Amino acid sequence: MGAEAVPEGFVAMSKLDGYMGHFGQLYADVPRRTLAVRVGEHHLNNLGIPHGGMLATLADTAIGMMMQIETERKHNAVTVNLSLDYLDAARVGDWLEARVEFDKLGSRLRYGTCRVMSGERCLLRATAIFAVLGPRT
Amino acid sequence: MGAEAVPEGFVAMSKLDGYMGHFGQLYADVPRRTLAVRVGEHHLNNLGIPHGGMLATLADTAIGMMMQIETERKHNAVTVNLSLDYLDAARVGDWLEARVEFDKLGSRLRYGTCRVMSGERCLLRATAIFAVLGPRT
Amino acid sequence: MGAEAVPEGFVAMSKLDGYMGHFGQLYADVPRRTLAVRVGEHHLNNLGIPHGGMLATLADTAIGMMMQIETERKHNAVTVNLSLDYLDAARVGDWLEARVEFDKLGSRLRYGTCRVMSGERCLLRATAIFAVLGPRT
Amino acid sequence: MGAEAVPEGFVAMSKLDGYMGHFGQLYADVPRRTLAVRVGEHHLNNLGIPHGGMLATLADTAIGMMMQIETERKHNAVTVNLSLDYLDAARVGDWLEARVEFDKLGSRLRYGTCRVMSGERCLLRATAIFAVLGPRT
Repeated sequence: MGAEAVPEGFVAMSKLDGYMGHFGQLYADVPRRTLAVRVGEHHLNNLGIPHGGMLATLADTAIGMMMQIETERKHNAVTVNLSLDYLDAARVGDWLEARVEFDKLGSRLRYGTCRVMSGERCLLRATAIFAVLGPRT
Repeated sequence: MGAEAVPEGFVAMSKLDGYMGHFGQLYADVPRRTLAVRVGEHHLNNLGIPHGGMLATLADTAIGMMMQIETERKHNAVTVNLSLDYLDAARVGDWLEARVEFDKLGSRLRYGTCRVMSGERCLLRATAIFAVLGPRT
Repeated sequence: MGAEAVPEGFVAMSKLDGYMGHFGQLYADVPRRTLAVRVGEHHLNNLGIPHGGMLATLADTAIGMMMQIETERKHNAVTVNLSLDYLDAARVGDWLEARVEFDKLGSRLRYGTCRVMSGERCLLRATAIFAVLGPRT
Repeated sequence: MGAEAVPEGFVAMSKLDGYMGHFGQLYADVPRRTLAVRVGEHHLNNLGIPHGGMLATLADTAIGMMMQIETERKHNAVTVNLSLDYLDAARVGDWLEARVEFDKLGSRLRYGTCRVMSGERCLLRATAIFAVLGPRT
């Protein structure tokens, strides 16, 4: 697969505002609850591998976004806990997929899991708890 | 304190490369093991508060940087675990301080803690484990 | 299923020493990497549900035991990080299964996941990092 | 200090029920938000050091107990997340102190931290989130 190819099933997302504005082009495969990005120079730390904060940001965004879709955007929710284990590193040009699962979507707390994969390798394992806010107005 | 004032003891850092290149101006107070930043629009999520990934990135960077200074940069180290609890939110213009402590700096594993404060309020509590790599060459 | 029935595939383990000596009868289904126990009065906290420490102990034991079997007991390993999310409660008489998966079994660090289930309900989600010690002597 | 001496300020607690019934004699120093225990054979794992679940149980109990005292027992609360980093080991006869701090005691979520110390050494660093239940009846 060429460095610029986008795997089947992924759709380019429109540019986000705020902190995600400089993150780079994101791709979503909603039926598979997966968010993807290709590693660029602007994702690296001073050791030349993706910054721990970049992978944390990808996981937090993927879980939050898929959670909103899954719950039909009825309520907003904010991250309460994010526990991250870094298993392996990636390089510029690698295609990363953040795959999300839900363990429980309660009325007060929601529990999601995300694995960031590069091919068959798991780079990051993330568990998150979100607190549900009042109804959207 | 005006929105642009920098508290005593903090020194503006030179611009970093890679993922930190767009983070915004960082300030360091090395004797107090603290890294600081003023919240801008480019730090926010779609709810208008700092993105969970932004706070994660600030904590991971602060712990890693202060750890390298504390250990005199003899070895590189990579994040193995980062556990984040989000306690409160901040707004544009708030001055955030990421204060770092070390619980153990072993030969294989290093344990740091970081609290991101806005005045007296704790926004984020972070614990990190870093794995020490071979000597720098 | 009667309160005393043991599901097919599980074998009663011989009594363990030390901290696990009072835990109650454990059952293992090694091919499915699962450790099980039936909730008794001696597992409860003052709210009448399994103590958070009891579920933590079950998950830590299940991950450590299945990891030793998976790696053929060539090296000992100790828990470095255990991140626990409590999703739901159980009652006396419930049959709990701690199901283990491995994300990476490296030469220095090993990463396991455990979900403690009561039927279809997930009570606890646990991620663990173990550090590998020198060879067993 | 002899193996049986109890440091000044600590008071022996009455025996608890349920899971804590076999834990061993606990001592409390409420003004310093500290719970203590002396390591016995019944706390060990198969490597001869305190079981990871034993330290998790001590931390969870200490945080929950000190939280109830701090909030005057107005509401019950249950553990939602417990993140544990194991830094060092202890031996039989060691006196362990679980020292608790609170980062935030909100109306819905409460955030506590605990360090289990053996003298000057930190064995365990624990962060916890508890969810507040309805008023006690």
